[in-house]
Amino acid sequence: MKALILAAGRSKRMQPVADKNFLNFLGQPLIKWQLNMLWKNGFKDVILVGGAHNLDRLHELDNEMPMKIDVVEQEDLDEGMKGAVLAAEDLIGDEPVLVFSSNDVVGADAFKLIKDAADEDKEVDGFLLAKKVTEYFPGGYLELNSDGFINGVVEKPEPGSEPSDLINLVVHYFKNPKILIKHLKKAESDSDDLYEKALDGMILEGSKLRAIEYEGYWQAVKFPWHVQPVFEYLLDLHLSGDERKVSGDAEIADTAIIEGKVVIEEGVRVMDGATVKGPCYLGRGTIVATNALVRGANIGESCVIGFSTEVARSYLGDNVWTHSNYIGDSVIGNDVSFGAGTVVGNLRLDEGMIGETGTNKWGLVTGDHIRVGVNTSFMPGVRVGAESFVGAGIVVAEDIPEKSFVRGKWDLKVSENKGEFSEEMREMMRKKL
Amino acid sequence: MKALILAAGRSKRMQPVADKNFLNFLGQPLIKWQLNMLWKNGFKDVILVGGAHNLDRLHELDNEMPMKIDVVEQEDLDEGMKGAVLAAEDLIGDEPVLVFSSNDVVGADAFKLIKDAADEDKEVDGFLLAKKVTEYFPGGYLELNSDGFINGVVEKPEPGSEPSDLINLVVHYFKNPKILIKHLKKAESDSDDLYEKALDGMILEGSKLRAIEYEGYWQAVKFPWHVQPVFEYLLDLHLSGDERKVSGDAEIADTAIIEGKVVIEEGVRVMDGATVKGPCYLGRGTIVATNALVRGANIGESCVIGFSTEVARSYLGDNVWTHSNYIGDSVIGNDVSFGAGTVVGNLRLDEGMIGETGTNKWGLVTGDHIRVGVNTSFMPGVRVGAESFVGAGIVVAEDIPEKSFVRGKWDLKVSENKGEFSEEMREMMRKKL
Amino acid sequence: MKALILAAGRSKRMQPVADKNFLNFLGQPLIKWQLNMLWKNGFKDVILVGGAHNLDRLHELDNEMPMKIDVVEQEDLDEGMKGAVLAAEDLIGDEPVLVFSSNDVVGADAFKLIKDAADEDKEVDGFLLAKKVTEYFPGGYLELNSDGFINGVVEKPEPGSEPSDLINLVVHYFKNPKILIKHLKKAESDSDDLYEKALDGMILEGSKLRAIEYEGYWQAVKFPWHVQPVFEYLLDLHLSGDERKVSGDAEIADTAIIEGKVVIEEGVRVMDGATVKGPCYLGRGTIVATNALVRGANIGESCVIGFSTEVARSYLGDNVWTHSNYIGDSVIGNDVSFGAGTVVGNLRLDEGMIGETGTNKWGLVTGDHIRVGVNTSFMPGVRVGAESFVGAGIVVAEDIPEKSFVRGKWDLKVSENKGEFSEEMREMMRKKL
Repeated sequence: MKALILAAGRSKRMQPVADKNFLNFLGQPLIKWQLNMLWKNGFKDVILVGGAHNLDRLHELDNEMPMKIDVVEQEDLDEGMKGAVLAAEDLIGDEPVLVFSSNDVVGADAFKLIKDAADEDKEVDGFLLAKKVTEYFPGGYLELNSDGFINGVVEKPEPGSEPSDLINLVVHYFKNPKILIKHLKKAESDSDDLYEKALDGMILEGSKLRAIEYEGYWQAVKFPWHVQPVFEYLLDLHLSGDERKVSGDAEIADTAIIEGKVVIEEGVRVMDGATVKGPCYLGRGTIVATNALVRGANIGESCVIGFSTEVARSYLGDNVWTHSNYIGDSVIGNDVSFGAGTVVGNLRLDEGMIGETGTNKWGLVTGDHIRVGVNTSFMPGVRVGAESFVGAGIVVAEDIPEKSFVRGKWDLKVSENKGEFSEEMREMMRKKL
Repeated sequence: MKALILAAGRSKRMQPVADKNFLNFLGQPLIKWQLNMLWKNGFKDVILVGGAHNLDRLHELDNEMPMKIDVVEQEDLDEGMKGAVLAAEDLIGDEPVLVFSSNDVVGADAFKLIKDAADEDKEVDGFLLAKKVTEYFPGGYLELNSDGFINGVVEKPEPGSEPSDLINLVVHYFKNPKILIKHLKKAESDSDDLYEKALDGMILEGSKLRAIEYEGYWQAVKFPWHVQPVFEYLLDLHLSGDERKVSGDAEIADTAIIEGKVVIEEGVRVMDGATVKGPCYLGRGTIVATNALVRGANIGESCVIGFSTEVARSYLGDNVWTHSNYIGDSVIGNDVSFGAGTVVGNLRLDEGMIGETGTNKWGLVTGDHIRVGVNTSFMPGVRVGAESFVGAGIVVAEDIPEKSFVRGKWDLKVSENKGEFSEEMREMMRKKL
Repeated sequence: MKALILAAGRSKRMQPVADKNFLNFLGQPLIKWQLNMLWKNGFKDVILVGGAHNLDRLHELDNEMPMKIDVVEQEDLDEGMKGAVLAAEDLIGDEPVLVFSSNDVVGADAFKLIKDAADEDKEVDGFLLAKKVTEYFPGGYLELNSDGFINGVVEKPEPGSEPSDLINLVVHYFKNPKILIKHLKKAESDSDDLYEKALDGMILEGSKLRAIEYEGYWQAVKFPWHVQPVFEYLLDLHLSGDERKVSGDAEIADTAIIEGKVVIEEGVRVMDGATVKGPCYLGRGTIVATNALVRGANIGESCVIGFSTEVARSYLGDNVWTHSNYIGDSVIGNDVSFGAGTVVGNLRLDEGMIGETGTNKWGLVTGDHIRVGVNTSFMPGVRVGAESFVGAGIVVAEDIPEKSFVRGKWDLKVSENKGEFSEEMREMMRKKL
């Protein structure tokens, strides 16, 4: 069975993160984690649909992964999943295929469930992975008929009028992809549901699609706040019961504290008085300097978590340099520096929900290649575009477009100093040291 | 002997602290410390005079304390001590009574001195506790006649013209309170000394009042800067020679440092690299996070002293959350949060006296329910009223009324970023890590 | 052989440092280090040429040093080295003399080389120390003739047209100083090279001057960024192979870390969780407080390196008080205080060279007697003149003249607080602690 992976999306909702497929979790891009999971479930032939923005990097995967990987370009990214499948039409052929969107992270058992169902019941034309939910989720719900087959997909029904408790996840098996392709070509819609319309068309014409109930792990990877749960899930996967993996050549100072589920790569230095609390990953050559605190963070290669810095529940790319900062609940790109005393605010004064995050603790998202001055403050939920400079001592309460230079107005009053101070006063202070 | 405690004052000079009687020292409100001291000296029958603002809380004390407590309301708080005593007229009756103002903290021996005097010399009509001072204090001085009886009270004499070295403290015994009450009813004055005028009236009419010299502990509790010395005194009392009380179920990390006179309640966690230097009290469930420093502080329940925060010589109420802050020489209410990097200035640039504090080190006083953003600076001596929000990255150099929202003007200049940076420069930096 | 030390310079390029001769390295002024080096090389008779600004302090050296020291004033400091030598004319006499500028730090072997040469070859009229360089340096190059004698000094030739690879260092021996003095009196020039013109005059008239090649240590002390390398050199000298000198009465906490080449004087306290990484010097009575980090720094007497402060690669005078600061690549005068959260920026956003420093990491230079408020930011390369106050929460991006009072404009908006917060939200936060 071939696997068709839809990886052409532009990660719009993840902006300014460039491409979520190449977010590095534990030093490995998300797309590799996905491919590995398929490989372990016996998929040896994979078609990757990419876009102009990531074709080169996708092509490299063929050398890096054990399976055969064909990469095909989806030219018109506005055509969504329909366009993605059709772009791969020639490669798919007429063998059974698994269609999988790289927008979702699911457990390895999800693929096994689908494969086993396909092996067992050759009569059915397709199987769709159906995540059982216990509370409302704004996605596509499956409507089943009395025989247990799928009647159709209802996109974002009103809460309370869901046709079932089953969410459609794009882990879809088709016995004969030609039928899907035929209906995709015919599908028309004003909104972004052409793929679902094609499924409806198949069903109307007699295809039997069955829902495979799935109660395992699932996490959409659409918004920056989805990064942290994916990291924590993959760390759990990676450590498989073990508590910790520390490279033999990492230098951990005697007075440093390492706690919980932690992976520390080669060349890492954790200096005196520093604390690393799992879930945590420290990429190759990263330094956690004196008295710093890292907790619940996925930190890339060659980063510097500087003196007295705290990084909490955050993703940092490679070459991120911090120094007496607080960075919490944030996603930071590659090659980013923060000046001393700069702080990411991750809580509104009224402690209310931050934007569409669904939580009241959320910080900063940045692109790559950013420099931030000292003593600057980012307000919760701000995004800073790639290749920007952000000056010292300012409060950034708005999103910053890429390639920006942001400064405050330093309106100082310089006058003659008429102040004096006495040795007596200094003595008073000395007593209070 | 009944005790009449005057506790109706509105704590005006303590603002925005709501009611000094309910400042919690070592987890117990000041008024309970006072009642305990009376109980230990044999007072089993207490009348508490309160105001509308604290009657409910005073009433609860009857259940919480071992003695009999009657609470009476003083309706017109502008009538001061006169109004307070008269409000209790019916409850006082004609038995001897001890009048005590909750504005003062004195040692237990003060009450014993007065009781012993009353027991020994039944001829005298009243005894007033007289604190011997060695330098000028702006209070009421006792003038004695040649027989050693009190001639009158001189309120705030000019320095150098004090009638004695004895300050009148309101720990007053009256054999027959009816006489005091009669004179209180007649007393008239434009200023706030009607009670003292009534004493003058008693003396003129032949009452014999004697001063009981007292050399023990005394601290007025009028201004916020009186809070710290009271805390230190009560901690000394509580530990009675012992160095430290740490609850058995508190979690103290191996690398945490606990030094000096410290009380740590149940559920407290002191994390790695944190230091707690006595005199110090940590209330139930409070967290002192990694690498934080607490020294000379009375910290309430469920507080978070966050990563790399320093709290020095300060009172924090319950539920105060800090995070990479410096809070020094301050009194902070209940349910207050400080964003990362926010700092309390506690020293003027010229190192001069701060307002009327009598010291050159004084910080911030806040009411309850306050949220402060990140990287904000409070100037020495500022007061912030209850239920206020104070935004990020600003300098607060003025008092803030209650229910305020304080922001800065974020006047950013966003232009195209023409800056570039080279790998060579980065290498230069890497060498200086 | 007498030594004539030219120490009258006004340290203009070192401003606002008052006098580089009295920068204290390891607790001893630079001029004493120089005198010691001469003493060890057998110079027992020294003439110091000073200016009005440092004559008093130079005079004190006669008592403090083992050699005979005569101090003479150069009245017109605009006359440079010519004026300096002529000011000492009467003291020099006609004995051989070594002329040495306190602008340079050289190894003890430099003096030995010159002395040995003078002892060996009595025919030669003078020897000039010639530092062999491997890359272009903007100084005076020696031009040699075919016999190996000096033809003249070429000041700052164009790169590529240097007459040799030998730089003229002012460690000059003259068998008969009268000849030098005669030519100094005749020398005329529009630029600052009258001394070199006099050398040319001597050569033209037949004096034989020989260059003594020198490959040892040499560091000019002209700009503030020359201070750190001199400190590191002198520390190496002082420790002579040893790793560390810690005074017996210094208090080092059990959890403090001391690493590398470090000198710690008496009365120093290094508190819990603090780290001191060599090369480092801590002067008498200095406190390195809880969780502070000092690395690569020369710290004077009675300083306070406060809680969670980092000082890196910097010179601090006496009585410098810090508190939760970052001070990097800086030179700080005596009696300077920094409020909590104040930070020295030492890197431009574009990571480019900072002014004329020749490096991309450079911070702050201050004079003596300065007070800085909390949460203030200094931009890289700023200089703050003596006796200035710098207010809280500002960005200082310009040089500040001495005796200035610098403030920001605190334009706050205070409005009614309509925000509310719920216990539910707080619970959400509590889970993320």
